[in-house]
Amino acid sequence: MSTPSNASTPARNSAPAGAGTGITTGAISAAHHKQYLTGSRDDLRVPVRTVHLTDDSTVRLYDTSGPYTDPAYEVDVRRGLPPIRDPWIDERGDTERYDGRIAALGVLPGAPVVRPRRATGGTAATQLAYARRGVVTPEMEFAAIREGLSPETVREALAAGRAVLPANINHPEIEPMLIGKDFLVKVNANIGNSAVTSSIEEETDKLVWAIRWGADTVMDLSTGDDIHTTREWIVRNSPVPIGTVPLYQALEKVNGKPEALTWELYRDTVVEQAEQGVDYMTVHAGVLLRYVPLTARRKTGIVSRGGSIMAAWCLAHHEENFLYANFRELTEILRAYDITYSLGDGLRPGSTHDANDEAQFAELTTLGELGRIAREMDVQVMIEGPGHVPMHKIKENVDLQQEICDEAPFYTLGPLTTDIAPGYDHITSAIGAAMIGMWGTAMLCYVTPKEHLGLPDRDDVKAGVIAYKIAAHAADLAKGHPTAHEWDDALSDARFEFRWQDQFDLALDPDTARAFHDETLPAAPAKTAHFCSMCGPKFCSMRISSDIRAYAAARGVDEESARTDGMREKSAEFAAQGGRVYLPLAD
Amino acid sequence: MSTPSNASTPARNSAPAGAGTGITTGAISAAHHKQYLTGSRDDLRVPVRTVHLTDDSTVRLYDTSGPYTDPAYEVDVRRGLPPIRDPWIDERGDTERYDGRIAALGVLPGAPVVRPRRATGGTAATQLAYARRGVVTPEMEFAAIREGLSPETVREALAAGRAVLPANINHPEIEPMLIGKDFLVKVNANIGNSAVTSSIEEETDKLVWAIRWGADTVMDLSTGDDIHTTREWIVRNSPVPIGTVPLYQALEKVNGKPEALTWELYRDTVVEQAEQGVDYMTVHAGVLLRYVPLTARRKTGIVSRGGSIMAAWCLAHHEENFLYANFRELTEILRAYDITYSLGDGLRPGSTHDANDEAQFAELTTLGELGRIAREMDVQVMIEGPGHVPMHKIKENVDLQQEICDEAPFYTLGPLTTDIAPGYDHITSAIGAAMIGMWGTAMLCYVTPKEHLGLPDRDDVKAGVIAYKIAAHAADLAKGHPTAHEWDDALSDARFEFRWQDQFDLALDPDTARAFHDETLPAAPAKTAHFCSMCGPKFCSMRISSDIRAYAAARGVDEESARTDGMREKSAEFAAQGGRVYLPLAD
Repeated sequence: MSTPSNASTPARNSAPAGAGTGITTGAISAAHHKQYLTGSRDDLRVPVRTVHLTDDSTVRLYDTSGPYTDPAYEVDVRRGLPPIRDPWIDERGDTERYDGRIAALGVLPGAPVVRPRRATGGTAATQLAYARRGVVTPEMEFAAIREGLSPETVREALAAGRAVLPANINHPEIEPMLIGKDFLVKVNANIGNSAVTSSIEEETDKLVWAIRWGADTVMDLSTGDDIHTTREWIVRNSPVPIGTVPLYQALEKVNGKPEALTWELYRDTVVEQAEQGVDYMTVHAGVLLRYVPLTARRKTGIVSRGGSIMAAWCLAHHEENFLYANFRELTEILRAYDITYSLGDGLRPGSTHDANDEAQFAELTTLGELGRIAREMDVQVMIEGPGHVPMHKIKENVDLQQEICDEAPFYTLGPLTTDIAPGYDHITSAIGAAMIGMWGTAMLCYVTPKEHLGLPDRDDVKAGVIAYKIAAHAADLAKGHPTAHEWDDALSDARFEFRWQDQFDLALDPDTARAFHDETLPAAPAKTAHFCSMCGPKFCSMRISSDIRAYAAARGVDEESARTDGMREKSAEFAAQGGRVYLPLAD
Repeated sequence: MSTPSNASTPARNSAPAGAGTGITTGAISAAHHKQYLTGSRDDLRVPVRTVHLTDDSTVRLYDTSGPYTDPAYEVDVRRGLPPIRDPWIDERGDTERYDGRIAALGVLPGAPVVRPRRATGGTAATQLAYARRGVVTPEMEFAAIREGLSPETVREALAAGRAVLPANINHPEIEPMLIGKDFLVKVNANIGNSAVTSSIEEETDKLVWAIRWGADTVMDLSTGDDIHTTREWIVRNSPVPIGTVPLYQALEKVNGKPEALTWELYRDTVVEQAEQGVDYMTVHAGVLLRYVPLTARRKTGIVSRGGSIMAAWCLAHHEENFLYANFRELTEILRAYDITYSLGDGLRPGSTHDANDEAQFAELTTLGELGRIAREMDVQVMIEGPGHVPMHKIKENVDLQQEICDEAPFYTLGPLTTDIAPGYDHITSAIGAAMIGMWGTAMLCYVTPKEHLGLPDRDDVKAGVIAYKIAAHAADLAKGHPTAHEWDDALSDARFEFRWQDQFDLALDPDTARAFHDETLPAAPAKTAHFCSMCGPKFCSMRISSDIRAYAAARGVDEESARTDGMREKSAEFAAQGGRVYLPLAD
C-alpha cells in the first residue's frame, strides 16, 4: 500500500487548483477515505472518515475536518464553504433577510454580499424551540447520524436543555454537532490574533489545522486590529461552530478602557457578530459587583480576561454588571439568531490554590439562575468551568455545576491539575480534562503548550488538539459510550497482529506514529516485521504471546483443560516440534 | 540576573575537567543551587535544590539529580560516584566481602576492583529487618530528611511493609529514597540498549539525563550485547536505585530460547546482578501455568516481556513457573544483598479491552501470597501494576492491590487510558498515572512518546520524565501531601506578580518555559513586563486583577464592606483618579 509523506508537517497548498492562502488539505493518511452518510433527505450528507485496513476491514471515525479533507472539494477560502443549511433554514420560514449593520464589512474580498438573517418578528428560531415543539430539524438529524443515535434521542436532550446544538442561522456552512453529556465529549480549540503577533491568513489556516486534528468547535479570540475581517474569514471557512467573547471586541472599541464600556456599545457588538454568524458567545454575566471582593484574598485574583474586564467596570461604576442587568434583552438578541450562550466563569481559579473557593461557586449560582432565564426564552445554554483545579477537587465542580445549572452542558478549560509545569500545560490540563470529561463535562476547551507563556503556533495548536482528543476519547471510554471502544479495539488488534500500516492509519496522528517508528527502523520490511523496534526480533512479547495463542488454538487448549492439567501431553507435543516460539522473520 | 543558555538541549561536557563521555552536568537554571541538609552525622548529607527568587525568597525542591548538578563535584564516569553508604554498611557489621563470580568483569576500565559484599552467614542485612528491630539506619534518616518527615515515621512504614527503601549493599553510591503511599509519589524511567540500537555511553548519558529531570529510580532493561558492562556503568554512576529484570539477561544466555531457561541459570544471573549492586528486581513469579490459558481469549494476549517468556517456558515444560517453585531460595539471595522485590505483573493487560480481567487479577492474588513470604523472610517488596486501563477501571486496581497485597507499595506502568494515540502515550498514560497516584500508587513507571513504536532517545526520555513528574506531583497535591502545594503556590505568586524569571526558574523544565516565552516576546524587557505575550499589554487579566487588588487593599475594601454596599464612595474615588487600571509599561 502506498502511503503519504510521513513528514510531521504535511505540505501546504496540496489542494486542487483554486486553493487560497496556504490551507492544509487532503487526507491525513492515504487509507483515510471521506464518506458521507445520507439522512432522510438528499441534502443531508453527514461526513465520516473511513479507515481502510489491510485485512480488508474498515473502521468508521467521527470526522470534524470539513470539506478540506475531501479530495473532491475545491477549496477557495475567499469564497468560503457552501451554505449547506440554507435550504433547511429557508424551509422553516421563520426568518427574514435584512440589511445588516455593517454588511459591506462582513464579506470576503470578491465574495457576493449576503444579507444577514434574523427571526421574523421576535419568534424563537432556535433549535431549542423546535425541540420543545417536538420538531426534529435537519440539523438534529445530521447531528444524530454523526453520533450514531436516533434523532428523537437528540431532540429530547436538546428540549431538556441537557445538550446544545450551536448553529447561528447566519452560519449556514456548519456541519451540525452536539454538545452534551449524553454524547461524545467534544473539544474546542482557541485561535485568534492578538495585539502582539499573528495575521488573518495564519488564523484561517489555524482553524483548518485545528479541525483537521479533531477540534469540534473553534473560538476566535482575536483582540487585535482587523478583528471583524479576521472573524469573517474564519466563519465563512468554518464547518464547525465558532465561538467568540464579544466583550473583547467591545473593549477594542473603547481603546481598552473597561470603565468606558456601555451596554449599548456591547449590544451593538453582539448584533454585529450575530450577523456574521457566530454560533456561541461567552458572556461574563455572572461576575456580580458583590462577588469581586471575594477574589481579593486569592493567590491569583481574576484570571479570566472577560471576568477581569467586567470586575474593573463594576468597581469603576459601582454598578451591577451590565450584562447581568440587561440579560433578558441580550437573550432576545441571541434568540433572534439562534446563538448559544456560553455563560462564562469570569471568576474561575487561576491557580490550584484558588480552586473551588467562594468566589467561584458564588458565580456558578448566578450562572444557574441566568441559564434558567435563557432557556425559558428558548435560548440554548452551556456553562463554562475552570481553570486550575487539583484532582481531588475536580468532581465537585461537575457535580455542583450539574445540580445548580439543571444539567446544562458543562464546558471546561482543562482544568490544569498543577501549576508547576509551564511549557507542558497541555499535559497538566489533559489530566484534568479527561477526569472532568469522565464525570460529565460535555466539551473541553484545549490548552496548548504555550499557555501562560506565549501565543500558540501551528505546532502548538496541533499538540493542544491531540492532547485534548486523547482526554475526550479516554472520557468516552470511561463513560461507557457504546461505540467508543471500537477504535481502541481495532488499533489493539492491529498491534497484536503486527499490522504496522494499520496501527499508523488508526492512530490519532498517523504522521507522528509513522515518523517515530521510522526513526528506529526505517527500512520498509520493518513495517511487516513480526516484532517492534523496542525489543527486537528475539524478545517480542507480542510475538511470543501470539505464538502461545496459536499453539493453544491449534491444539484445543482452553481454560478448562489447563485447569484440569490436561496440557501435559500437549506440552510434549510442543517440545517435540522444537518448542519453537519464534518464527523466521517475514520479509 | 544572568541566566544560562535557554537552548532546549544544554551543552554536554560542560562539567569541570575530568568529565567523561558526554554527560550533561551543571545546574538546570542559574537560580538553582545545590545544597545539602545534614542529619545526625556529618557524612549524612541530603541533597536539595534551592531556587533563589528575585524577591529574595527561596523555594526548596526535592532533588534526584545527584552530584551531576553540583558544580563542586568533578564528574568521572570511569571512576563512578563516591560510595557514600560504605561507612554506614561497614558500621552495621553484618556483611562480608568475598570474591564475586565475575568480579573482574564487573568494574569499569581503569577503576579499582571492588569485591562485593553479602550478608554474613544468612543474616538479613535488609532495611526491613532493621526497621522491624526498631533501628533507624542512616539510610532511613537520609530518606526521612528528603521527605521532610521524622525518621521514626519512615521506620514504621518500612517495618509495616507499606514502604520500601531499595538499597543493595553493593550500591553504596545511592542517595537513599522511599517508595510508599505515605510519601511523595515517585517516578521510574526505563533505559537500556536493545538488540537493535544504542550504545553503552548513550545509556549512561540517558541515566544522568533522566535523573536530571526528576527520575527517582531507573530501570536498566538492556537486552543486547555487553549487558553486564552496560549495567556496570549505569550502577556505578547512579545516585538513584537501579532496577532490572534478570530474566532478560538470563534469556540472552540461552540465545533467546525461553524453553532452555533453567532455575540454576536464572539464579546465577541474579547473583551476578546482586554483586553489581542492582537495588530492585522485577520477578515474574506470579505467571502460573494455570493462568496462561486465561489469556487466550484476550485481544492482546501477554504483553509483558517477562510474562510472555515465563508463559512460554511453562507451556513448553508443562511445569510450574520456576520462579514460583523456587521463590524461597530466590528470596534468600535477595535478602543477602538487600535487594527489593518488584513482583512483576506478567499478565498485565496490553489494551484497554483486556483490563481488569481474570488473568490479571488471578496473578495479583499470587503476587499477594509471594509478598507475604518475602516479608516474612525480611525482604522488601513492591508490586507491579498495569498497563492499559480505561479510567473507570483504574481505582479498582489500586484498591484490590492494596487489599490483596497488604498495602505493599504499588508500582504501575501508566496506565494508558486509551489505545488510539501511538506517538503520544506519555500523555495517554500520564492521565492514568496521575489518577492511580492519587488513589495510592507509590511509584509510576514512565512511558515515553516512543512507546509501541521505537526506542526512546534523549528527547523522549525527557518528555517521558516530565510528563510523569507532572502526574506524580498532581497526585501529591490531590493526596494532600503537606508540602506539595508550596511549589505550585510559589509559581502562582510569581505568575500573578509578573516575575517572569521566577516563573522560569520554578518551572519543572525552565529551559522550555523560557524558550517558549522568548519565541513570542524575545526582547529582554519583556521579562519584566507587566503582561504576558498572550494578550498583550492592554488585555492582561492578571494585570487588571492585580490593579483591583491594589485598589481594594489601599482603600480598605474587603468582602464585608462590599457586601454591605460600602463601596459606592470608594468607586467615586477610583473614578476621580482617572479609573486607571493600566499602568505605564515598566521597562
